[in-house]
Amino acid sequence: MDKFDFLIIGAGCAGASGGMYASRLNLKTAMIAEMPGGLITTTHLVENWPGLKSVTGPDLGSSLVEHALAFGVKLQNEKVTGIEKVSLTAEDEKNGRKPGFMVSTASHQYLGKTLLFATGSKHKKLEAPGESEFENKGVSYCALCDGAFYRGKIVAVVGSGDSAAKEALLLAQQAAKVYVISRTSLHPEPVNLERVQENEKIELLSGAEVGEVYGDQKVKGLKLKDGRDLAVDGIFVAIGLIPHSELAASLGVVLNDRKEIIINRNSETNIPGVFGAGDVCDSRFKQAITGAAEAVTASFWAHEYLLKNQVSLG
Amino acid sequence: MDKFDFLIIGAGCAGASGGMYASRLNLKTAMIAEMPGGLITTTHLVENWPGLKSVTGPDLGSSLVEHALAFGVKLQNEKVTGIEKVSLTAEDEKNGRKPGFMVSTASHQYLGKTLLFATGSKHKKLEAPGESEFENKGVSYCALCDGAFYRGKIVAVVGSGDSAAKEALLLAQQAAKVYVISRTSLHPEPVNLERVQENEKIELLSGAEVGEVYGDQKVKGLKLKDGRDLAVDGIFVAIGLIPHSELAASLGVVLNDRKEIIINRNSETNIPGVFGAGDVCDSRFKQAITGAAEAVTASFWAHEYLLKNQVSLG
Repeated sequence: MDKFDFLIIGAGCAGASGGMYASRLNLKTAMIAEMPGGLITTTHLVENWPGLKSVTGPDLGSSLVEHALAFGVKLQNEKVTGIEKVSLTAEDEKNGRKPGFMVSTASHQYLGKTLLFATGSKHKKLEAPGESEFENKGVSYCALCDGAFYRGKIVAVVGSGDSAAKEALLLAQQAAKVYVISRTSLHPEPVNLERVQENEKIELLSGAEVGEVYGDQKVKGLKLKDGRDLAVDGIFVAIGLIPHSELAASLGVVLNDRKEIIINRNSETNIPGVFGAGDVCDSRFKQAITGAAEAVTASFWAHEYLLKNQVSLG
Repeated sequence: MDKFDFLIIGAGCAGASGGMYASRLNLKTAMIAEMPGGLITTTHLVENWPGLKSVTGPDLGSSLVEHALAFGVKLQNEKVTGIEKVSLTAEDEKNGRKPGFMVSTASHQYLGKTLLFATGSKHKKLEAPGESEFENKGVSYCALCDGAFYRGKIVAVVGSGDSAAKEALLLAQQAAKVYVISRTSLHPEPVNLERVQENEKIELLSGAEVGEVYGDQKVKGLKLKDGRDLAVDGIFVAIGLIPHSELAASLGVVLNDRKEIIINRNSETNIPGVFGAGDVCDSRFKQAITGAAEAVTASFWAHEYLLKNQVSLG
């Protein structure tokens, strides 16, 4: 069975950056990932990776993965199906050894002395016809990422919480008009509600649901379930994120009420030797660069952990 | 007087990355910096900025600054001489307004509703006799800046960390011989330790300390405290960094015992509206990428702060 010092679940912006650093720190490192490059590879243009004024999501994702590989990180393109702690023998216990971790996929098992969850998250979908078809062709899940493409255009935000309001406010700085479509009435933080209400570019459509997204090459509009038709150039879905934290939870990692992994400033979770980074974690402002830095920080503290602890791999 | 939402002191990896984000968040942002690009511009090769396998320090620094400028951040190439809180009027107090900040340089004053200290750090000195006398006459703190003067010559690097190893590796490309003088054993990133050990031009002198630098017009050699005498043409000092935290301290920002600004996970200092990021702060693992992420995080929380607070600029 392959044994590693630092085993990363995920190979997106966070995982790959942490892998590169861990390898430079001489930790034998592997990334096990279903989707090398991660969620950013589904974004058309990235303009906020510091130093790169404009890069495609796929290019950024693959440059991060390649950087990690160049320093010797192993990449396994597999889905992790289970993780458990290695059982300690009486001898291990007597010597104060810490347990390592066994990660299983459909066809392999890997042992890691330390573990980094960089499993990311996925945007909750509308599940409306046309949504998937026009993803990155007018359907977006991130106003900060993609808002600048809609300068002077008409857009719709779908959602009723604070994120939806904030997406709308951010978009209204550049777009000509912003509809906010919410099933219930909009209920963001009061300050944001006021701002939305005062903003002449924003029109609230409460008690409405998206029935269908349509267009040709790009989004041209959407149909509400009540039959209304809105001509829009972009649709921003802000109905929530779903962190990929099930595996972490199954190992006993503590999550918050949003199902995000709780980490501290050293990217440590509640389990010694287990770290978290990126979108799966509880940082309020989740960006590619902040997730990458969390993983880099995790690699350092994993290195420190291994200097101070003997870890048993069974 | 120019007024800004987010005023950044510094324009290095941290400051420039935070500026770029702040501007994308529509905060009117300026960076006031003596040395745009920051200390990384004195580094030869950077191999650990995720996504860039190898980039020169000057190129990385300027790409970060250019990225910020491209999004509308203003850059003032000046030295800040003083910072103070704006005085609140009775009316301000009654309305719960927070004080903004006035930043002075020799010739200008700037008002900022929020402030980011991204002031970085400077090289620590040996404090050995002869060091100051021969600064720029054989004593240097930057192999990238001055290494080319030592083609075919004998040089010494003083230090035991990763910077010392990298300085030695860079110098070995041109110099005939490179001593590395370290009080403890050399402990750089493992990848760099291997490179140093494999380099035939590099000789490690561990457990040694510089007692004196001597020469006439230029450096001719140094004496170790154990009495040994080394004839060298140049001495490169890489013994650590001193945070540029005096301005922050003068404003009342709390520092730790290393004189680093104490920040939390939101990059907030003890003063509302004042943030810190990068090498001037108290993160244990200080890297270009982690400093950049701290500043990006600061830009987000400054934005949140301004949504929730009225700030008086006098």
